[in-house]
Amino acid sequence: MTTIDHWIGGKPAEGTSGNYGPVYNPATGAEAKRVALASVEEVDAAVAAALAAYQTWSTASLSKRSAVLFKYRELLDAHRDEIAALITAEHGKVHSDALGEVARGLEIVELATSAPLLLKGELSTQVSTRVDVSAIRQPVGVVAGITPFNFPAMVPMWMFPLAIACGNTFVLKPSEKVPSAAYRLAELAAEAGLPDGVLNVVNGDRVAVERLLDHPDVSAISFVGSTPIARHIFTTGTANGKRVQALGGAKNHMLVLPDADLDLAADSAVNAAYGSAGERCMAVSVVVAVGAETGDALVEKIASRAAGLRIGPGDDPASEMGPLITKQHRDKVASYVHSAREQGAEVVVDGTGYTVEGYENGHFVGVSLLDKVSTDMDAYRDEIFGPVLCVVRAETYDEAIRLINSSRWGNGTAIFTRDGGAARRFQLEVQAGMVGVNVPIPVPVGYHSFGGWKESLFGDHHIYGNDGVHFYTRGKVVTTRWPDPSDSGINLGFPSNS
Amino acid sequence: MTTIDHWIGGKPAEGTSGNYGPVYNPATGAEAKRVALASVEEVDAAVAAALAAYQTWSTASLSKRSAVLFKYRELLDAHRDEIAALITAEHGKVHSDALGEVARGLEIVELATSAPLLLKGELSTQVSTRVDVSAIRQPVGVVAGITPFNFPAMVPMWMFPLAIACGNTFVLKPSEKVPSAAYRLAELAAEAGLPDGVLNVVNGDRVAVERLLDHPDVSAISFVGSTPIARHIFTTGTANGKRVQALGGAKNHMLVLPDADLDLAADSAVNAAYGSAGERCMAVSVVVAVGAETGDALVEKIASRAAGLRIGPGDDPASEMGPLITKQHRDKVASYVHSAREQGAEVVVDGTGYTVEGYENGHFVGVSLLDKVSTDMDAYRDEIFGPVLCVVRAETYDEAIRLINSSRWGNGTAIFTRDGGAARRFQLEVQAGMVGVNVPIPVPVGYHSFGGWKESLFGDHHIYGNDGVHFYTRGKVVTTRWPDPSDSGINLGFPSNS
Amino acid sequence: MTTIDHWIGGKPAEGTSGNYGPVYNPATGAEAKRVALASVEEVDAAVAAALAAYQTWSTASLSKRSAVLFKYRELLDAHRDEIAALITAEHGKVHSDALGEVARGLEIVELATSAPLLLKGELSTQVSTRVDVSAIRQPVGVVAGITPFNFPAMVPMWMFPLAIACGNTFVLKPSEKVPSAAYRLAELAAEAGLPDGVLNVVNGDRVAVERLLDHPDVSAISFVGSTPIARHIFTTGTANGKRVQALGGAKNHMLVLPDADLDLAADSAVNAAYGSAGERCMAVSVVVAVGAETGDALVEKIASRAAGLRIGPGDDPASEMGPLITKQHRDKVASYVHSAREQGAEVVVDGTGYTVEGYENGHFVGVSLLDKVSTDMDAYRDEIFGPVLCVVRAETYDEAIRLINSSRWGNGTAIFTRDGGAARRFQLEVQAGMVGVNVPIPVPVGYHSFGGWKESLFGDHHIYGNDGVHFYTRGKVVTTRWPDPSDSGINLGFPSNS
Amino acid sequence: MTTIDHWIGGKPAEGTSGNYGPVYNPATGAEAKRVALASVEEVDAAVAAALAAYQTWSTASLSKRSAVLFKYRELLDAHRDEIAALITAEHGKVHSDALGEVARGLEIVELATSAPLLLKGELSTQVSTRVDVSAIRQPVGVVAGITPFNFPAMVPMWMFPLAIACGNTFVLKPSEKVPSAAYRLAELAAEAGLPDGVLNVVNGDRVAVERLLDHPDVSAISFVGSTPIARHIFTTGTANGKRVQALGGAKNHMLVLPDADLDLAADSAVNAAYGSAGERCMAVSVVVAVGAETGDALVEKIASRAAGLRIGPGDDPASEMGPLITKQHRDKVASYVHSAREQGAEVVVDGTGYTVEGYENGHFVGVSLLDKVSTDMDAYRDEIFGPVLCVVRAETYDEAIRLINSSRWGNGTAIFTRDGGAARRFQLEVQAGMVGVNVPIPVPVGYHSFGGWKESLFGDHHIYGNDGVHFYTRGKVVTTRWPDPSDSGINLGFPSNS
Repeated sequence: MTTIDHWIGGKPAEGTSGNYGPVYNPATGAEAKRVALASVEEVDAAVAAALAAYQTWSTASLSKRSAVLFKYRELLDAHRDEIAALITAEHGKVHSDALGEVARGLEIVELATSAPLLLKGELSTQVSTRVDVSAIRQPVGVVAGITPFNFPAMVPMWMFPLAIACGNTFVLKPSEKVPSAAYRLAELAAEAGLPDGVLNVVNGDRVAVERLLDHPDVSAISFVGSTPIARHIFTTGTANGKRVQALGGAKNHMLVLPDADLDLAADSAVNAAYGSAGERCMAVSVVVAVGAETGDALVEKIASRAAGLRIGPGDDPASEMGPLITKQHRDKVASYVHSAREQGAEVVVDGTGYTVEGYENGHFVGVSLLDKVSTDMDAYRDEIFGPVLCVVRAETYDEAIRLINSSRWGNGTAIFTRDGGAARRFQLEVQAGMVGVNVPIPVPVGYHSFGGWKESLFGDHHIYGNDGVHFYTRGKVVTTRWPDPSDSGINLGFPSNS
Repeated sequence: MTTIDHWIGGKPAEGTSGNYGPVYNPATGAEAKRVALASVEEVDAAVAAALAAYQTWSTASLSKRSAVLFKYRELLDAHRDEIAALITAEHGKVHSDALGEVARGLEIVELATSAPLLLKGELSTQVSTRVDVSAIRQPVGVVAGITPFNFPAMVPMWMFPLAIACGNTFVLKPSEKVPSAAYRLAELAAEAGLPDGVLNVVNGDRVAVERLLDHPDVSAISFVGSTPIARHIFTTGTANGKRVQALGGAKNHMLVLPDADLDLAADSAVNAAYGSAGERCMAVSVVVAVGAETGDALVEKIASRAAGLRIGPGDDPASEMGPLITKQHRDKVASYVHSAREQGAEVVVDGTGYTVEGYENGHFVGVSLLDKVSTDMDAYRDEIFGPVLCVVRAETYDEAIRLINSSRWGNGTAIFTRDGGAARRFQLEVQAGMVGVNVPIPVPVGYHSFGGWKESLFGDHHIYGNDGVHFYTRGKVVTTRWPDPSDSGINLGFPSNS
Repeated sequence: MTTIDHWIGGKPAEGTSGNYGPVYNPATGAEAKRVALASVEEVDAAVAAALAAYQTWSTASLSKRSAVLFKYRELLDAHRDEIAALITAEHGKVHSDALGEVARGLEIVELATSAPLLLKGELSTQVSTRVDVSAIRQPVGVVAGITPFNFPAMVPMWMFPLAIACGNTFVLKPSEKVPSAAYRLAELAAEAGLPDGVLNVVNGDRVAVERLLDHPDVSAISFVGSTPIARHIFTTGTANGKRVQALGGAKNHMLVLPDADLDLAADSAVNAAYGSAGERCMAVSVVVAVGAETGDALVEKIASRAAGLRIGPGDDPASEMGPLITKQHRDKVASYVHSAREQGAEVVVDGTGYTVEGYENGHFVGVSLLDKVSTDMDAYRDEIFGPVLCVVRAETYDEAIRLINSSRWGNGTAIFTRDGGAARRFQLEVQAGMVGVNVPIPVPVGYHSFGGWKESLFGDHHIYGNDGVHFYTRGKVVTTRWPDPSDSGINLGFPSNS
Repeated sequence: MTTIDHWIGGKPAEGTSGNYGPVYNPATGAEAKRVALASVEEVDAAVAAALAAYQTWSTASLSKRSAVLFKYRELLDAHRDEIAALITAEHGKVHSDALGEVARGLEIVELATSAPLLLKGELSTQVSTRVDVSAIRQPVGVVAGITPFNFPAMVPMWMFPLAIACGNTFVLKPSEKVPSAAYRLAELAAEAGLPDGVLNVVNGDRVAVERLLDHPDVSAISFVGSTPIARHIFTTGTANGKRVQALGGAKNHMLVLPDADLDLAADSAVNAAYGSAGERCMAVSVVVAVGAETGDALVEKIASRAAGLRIGPGDDPASEMGPLITKQHRDKVASYVHSAREQGAEVVVDGTGYTVEGYENGHFVGVSLLDKVSTDMDAYRDEIFGPVLCVVRAETYDEAIRLINSSRWGNGTAIFTRDGGAARRFQLEVQAGMVGVNVPIPVPVGYHSFGGWKESLFGDHHIYGNDGVHFYTRGKVVTTRWPDPSDSGINLGFPSNS
């Protein structure tokens, strides 16, 4: 059985803890590989490698850093398919979706090639007589990244390319369920000429996470995962003196006004709710339809589209949706459909109990559509992270936005309308970090920043974009007053003042 | 006896807790006024006033906000002397120094008038076909400011003008030792047309601080004070879901190279170490002299200047240095001189036991100069916050910078040299947030940001400047794809696509 | 009779050329004052004063420049009414309109107070090993401003405050028809503490203009006026080695789609076409109505509003529109109504031959509304600069935008619609520098830039905002590599490399 | 004999004018190839191709444009050697120097990949009640580039990649002496996926230049060449309504203070004066030595280094300097050495009459060093553009900077010193666009802008960097006020206002 090791100091590092975790193929349900789980000592070795590399990398010139990143971009571009296949094999998502993930991650590598633009400091001359002020940003040190199972390549790429471009060195702990893509990213970085130790990967479980949280040489942590863990990472990491950004869960609402293009809205809802089997923190999990007519029509359109979705293994080009990550998770997702029915929702489409022929042990579930959901139902209150879409009915825009703004999360949201004035009000009033106008999954492009509000993000900085640069650097302001060269005692060709 | 009340909802609010604190005149030692200490209910009333005002102020136009701030700037400019007198009366610093404090605070009000420039968002059109992305920043809500005794007007002005310019509303809790200046700032803001409740002042002690830390309607906290309290504020505030920036203590080193202008260096050291009686977080408390010759000459020059300093009440124009804030603090400062002597330092100038004729009960202490201080002495290890300057000797630049970078604080630092290459190395290598080159107290101008590294600041954002704007706002990214107007079903004059 | 002199070197300078121009009161038609017309020698004196002042002003600190501008803002704010009265007396516009002009000019003074923000340079450290790069902007020298009659205060304020904030000195030549406001602006600047010679005013005619164009010590020229003169200024000025921005004429189209709020559109058209008697380069002079129904309804609504407009002297609070600048201009405006009728337009409202009781010699004309105008009529082809509104009918959006984009001017334009997609297409497709969406006169706020495309502006830079800063400064890039301090031959405490 | 054709509309276009120019190999003096010289019709065909391509390219998404540019960067990176060989074959410079040229050009392609960052617009919400303002930049149309012989690849790459990234289409007219590199650049762009017609190359002489200058469909021109031609291009182009930036000649001074590292200064002077045989607009052609001692020592050090320089064909790896571009130019360069001797300079090293064995017909000249040059000598007054270095003696810094600032050019300049205060004064006081501190050829990195002052540049914008983006785009400001969605007449779920 294949074992996925760590990558430390520019080369593979076999696990020495004796602990391994299983890596499943979700389409077959088989344990396909195993992954080494790091001990405290192995985490320490990775941090030590990163710290050693920091001394030179942090002072490497912008042109040097940028050259490596351009080369890295080339290599990643050439290996898109291979990385996508690794994602599909361990996560289960369909190949086209995995390719999309790689493409969105690559955006941040492209952003990172622009380090010289992103890191421009400021200079004010003659702020007062003969006094100048400059402001620069310097790297923070060793940064750790802790990433979730649902984007095995993209979320790591949201972090380390930019951190490295800023002069930091990096220790990545990917999800132990999907370790291969991250490992391959590290190999390719080495091939691109990244010096040893600048990017390290340690596989592991809670042991590794806790060690990163209390290691004195880790200066900053980027985390993406669920809200409870995000809160723990933030609180513990900051108490330990680290800079932390911890992105948590979500319950993203899509508001549909009566003037919306309902076919577009239905297509969008289907893609955004069921794509990647709903295992996305930006998935639409609630549609809020304004007006009974809008709601009825929309539910019908979504239901008819849902019926036609092809579910199957991710490596089958015909599949539009793959399995869930684990059996346990599949059963939990199904339980929300059951509880919603019990709590009074209309189960328009019931995806529970779905099986794929030839893949009976795969972690498959069908798509579900729940109508007339109310805010006290479990299916509304929890983040399901599966292909279950709730429809909530509202009579007015005001009722709809109050509902959205009552959520404890504030990650993404969208409005569907043609009306410029309605869209403006929504953009300004809605309490969420990422907003779509007729765009159901408004993940910002790489040169803007990704991040939610409320319990969707702990910390002051969103991820990637300018916020990412700010997070991975520290500000320094220099105030200078040069003495007059004429009174230095050395004759520099300046007439003496006296 | 004069009582200083709270300022809530645009008008004075008499204290109702029954608790009062004494406000001394440090020059005479007399208890001159008393200040109301807020109960939890009074803090709640201030937060409630701020929250009520938030609904309209947060959506007020940029032109409205800016107009109020320009008017406020006018009023503050006209009342410089009056505010400075309030500072001197309660803090003790000399009038010229108090005027300087007001001027530096006014810089941030001037910055705040530029809200429309500072709050410009970003817009990317056609990021992919027919998709646009915009990024804006919105206020965070009710912000609390907790400020120290040593800058009764300036530190509050580092906070609330910018917070307000960004659309937040504010509750200020000034130091209960020096409450009058902050109260006057609030009165003048009202006179400038700031709507009721946008700026509130609650006086108080630990009760008020703790209530602000756990009040659910306070979204963010700016704090300036000592390191232990800063850490507490940060940890507690963030655990309670607030955004926090907490600025702590310092031990600022001034590095003098052999080629420095030693007269300039000595003048700078005297001003930076003894100005405001050393009660500044940016005071120079350690001079690191490179080379024995440099050290000897510098100590002699500093000592001779120290001897001539005129110490007296702050409202006497002849005084160059005033008293310390309390008797207790004066005695503690003196104890460091004694312990340094015992621990082996050379006490070149001993300011302990100093009295001013006619002001025998004032909290005066003379200036002290300690040479050949080592890093294990108490006078080196602690932040003294009084007019005591330590000189440490180093043989080389490398030794000197290692020493500076070993400090647990990283607030300000300075180098004195004429050599461009030496200055560059220092700027890049030194681990501190604010660096002076031949400038002993490198407090950044208002349009750059103030903040230290390490234990001098908890949080991701420095204060005022662009960091201040970022701290007082939340990012929101909007991704938009407008449907083609030709297929809306309404004839807008666009030819139909079909 | 009052004479308006020049203002040179910080004080009044009586005219010595012996030439004077008449200054009329347009409401009465009387010659109310006279203005000195400068000789070449007087222009030279003003330029010499500006050049002399440049030596110190260009190196004055940002804090010094900013302090003067804040004070200037205070004074202007306090003198709004007085300046507006000067405008009304010589230009004729109604007082409220004149106050609006002052307010819009004041925006740029407020922008200019932000000089320290606007002039921040850039700094890149370690671009390659030990090499840093900084980019700063420096003033260009003596700048001349040549301004039109229609905004006696605002257009000068678009220029000199920002030019001065950037460190330049300035010679202003206002329109000789309306010289008093500009003169008063200069007096107040001196009162605010602006050093002598930094701002100079020379009154004059073509002699003064031509001298400014060829004076070797004038480094840059800002001009606002008609297209033929703008072209001449640009061509001559640049041939003489000067930096030039020359804003010319316009014919601004307002596109109304069928879904627009037609009452809003009609109100907007009336304000934008007839406000300030149409003597605005951003006046709407053409409405393009899409669809016959839209056009018919809109014309009716505009006509009924036009009927109710109160025309009278500008200093009468009841007046909504004042006289034109001269009798000659009034007659020319009227001639376009006549020719349009002859060329086939429907004259829905005919404002020619209008008189105001008690002001029979005033330069009054009523408002005119021409429907079914075609693009070959004189009233369409020329810039009328009077209260004449043309309505052109279009069947589709495509026809409408083709028409707008066929104009030789590209100053301002607007669309009225509720549809977000229609507005997006218009914004991206229309060839004009300033676009309104449901805003008829989209003059950008001061922190954005004003400028048209095509024959509405000659030069690369729009006026005020960031473009203004760029125009009034020159870029300089510094690349630095400091030698290692250890091999300087002087012992600076750095260990020797050898 | 090889013929170099045009490249129009994405494919080779054989010359049809019947006119050809010779392309020499400067090392052998042989006519090695010929180049088609375009007729007016052929220029028109290229512009037509560019205009046709503009319709789609100008609206192509940022992601599309960026993807092509990343691919282009890859291809150029892979073809560095090949392009460098083309340069050497036609221009004569040594291979390492040609590689350096390619690398500096590639910097701008890398900058161009960042188009999404560079083109970010601005957005201000709620500037006044319910009014928003956005500012975007749009392409200008068809841009022409006219480039000189001395950088056959780099200077074209300063222009078209950024112009194209901004959405423009391009017609490049390279120097007819060195056409092959530009042609190859166009081929590779097509290979990278650039749509046909976006980049076109027309070879030609004055006929082509004049046609580009007056072609109505050319919106902007970037030019690099000599001052007289630059002036002509600017004046004619702007008179024809085009946006123009025209970079001209230079006479770059290097100031050496007594405290400079003289070995570094001598090395720098040799590289900067004789590298690329002095055929660089950023070559150092004048050294200004402050103090007799400095001057004497420096002249000696330069002379001894000059003696050791290996001159030979550019494709010989041993060569450090190659031939000049033509025989005529070689003779003209030599004439300056002769006239300097006659006019009183000391000819320390005389490079005239130099021949290389085996390459007797090559356009070689040796390096010359002229000491004690005065400002009235021809060698000082003219741009020689060959390996002739003048040394001027000055007694003080003040004398030196006056001399430098008296030049009619203001391209590059440098100071050599260790003193921070001297360097600051020089940076602020010197009148030149590009300044080096201990850097002899301060060509800015790609993310800053290149450009001189005075007669070294005609136009408002420097080339590449942010200035390049600004030059290749036009600003548009949109002011928006959306009607309230509640009163649209359509029920959008907003409660009616009435």
